[in-house]
Amino acid sequence: MNQLPSLEKLIEAFRKLPSIGRKSAERMAYAVLRMDEESVANFVEALIAVKENVRACSRCGLYSESDLCHVCSSTQRDHSLLVIISSPLDYQSFEKVDSFNGVYHVLGGSISASSGISINDLNIDSLFPRIEKEGVKEIIIATNPTIEGETTALYLARLLEQYPVKVTRLAYGLPMGGHLGYADALTLEKSLQGRTTLKEDDDK
Amino acid sequence: MNQLPSLEKLIEAFRKLPSIGRKSAERMAYAVLRMDEESVANFVEALIAVKENVRACSRCGLYSESDLCHVCSSTQRDHSLLVIISSPLDYQSFEKVDSFNGVYHVLGGSISASSGISINDLNIDSLFPRIEKEGVKEIIIATNPTIEGETTALYLARLLEQYPVKVTRLAYGLPMGGHLGYADALTLEKSLQGRTTLKEDDDK
Repeated sequence: MNQLPSLEKLIEAFRKLPSIGRKSAERMAYAVLRMDEESVANFVEALIAVKENVRACSRCGLYSESDLCHVCSSTQRDHSLLVIISSPLDYQSFEKVDSFNGVYHVLGGSISASSGISINDLNIDSLFPRIEKEGVKEIIIATNPTIEGETTALYLARLLEQYPVKVTRLAYGLPMGGHLGYADALTLEKSLQGRTTLKEDDDK
Repeated sequence: MNQLPSLEKLIEAFRKLPSIGRKSAERMAYAVLRMDEESVANFVEALIAVKENVRACSRCGLYSESDLCHVCSSTQRDHSLLVIISSPLDYQSFEKVDSFNGVYHVLGGSISASSGISINDLNIDSLFPRIEKEGVKEIIIATNPTIEGETTALYLARLLEQYPVKVTRLAYGLPMGGHLGYADALTLEKSLQGRTTLKEDDDK
């Protein structure tokens, strides 16, 4: 409907959201037209408020509505166990793991030659002072299992060599609940490389 | 992130959009956080403007930024051919058909027992005066090929009996580019019922 500039602008605004194509953006814009005034007002208010209220935690980089996020300011968390993640969104996956109670450090990306992101563009400088100040004993590097994530992990591991801290990496392998028949070769290879022993060869 | 009420409210706002679940809404809200101020301001402006500027065309019910939509106010269109559609969105499909140059009438829904929508809830009363005033010769009923759409079409056809106008219905059948092997039985049955003759039996 090119005859409706207002609608067209809203469609364009929705298209800026992740994985929203033209068709979905149109459906959303039409849904806004059908919404009552109050819902649209709430929508507008929420957009404004989120940009005004939410910022990066000054310590770890997670999203927060105060200076320190709820993880960094918690005394219930194990501050000696620190997970390095690429994006604030990754935090949610860890929070679902009952046995995990550590803290976070958000890099804000991964090293990427194609996007021109180097190690200097990542939030790393603020990481080192945390190690001593918070008594960090182990750092788990949890960048994504991609070439960019791998590269970033290797760089980080090298930078962390001079610090008195254990550095680990998440295990690669088959996803739980998946089927072997559907596993890609790379995942299966990693799964083979990282295989764990159930029973030693007694004859040895 | 229940610790962030602003973010939570924006996620809820996105969830009100069609076919947006929790995960998608979260991704969108996080994308807003990463947007620059100007993009968010444009988004907010677009939401407000669309509700302020876009209304239903006073004649046909299509979305419009003026009293009459561009279809109703066009002298290039064939006003004697009127298509009845359930929703303004359906208009777009017809506009893609080169050979179609008629005008529209939006019902604003279909008769639905489960949703409690009766014939009285639809935008029908304004249809009848159009027939004479605009010299309508044919009305194509283009409600959806569903039970609700069928019911609505039958009701409409009955109501239109007293008017000197040809009433037709879109053909049912196999979608173009589809495969017979994937056709559902109902579609195939309709396709058989509506089969057209390529060559008469010469022996008769």
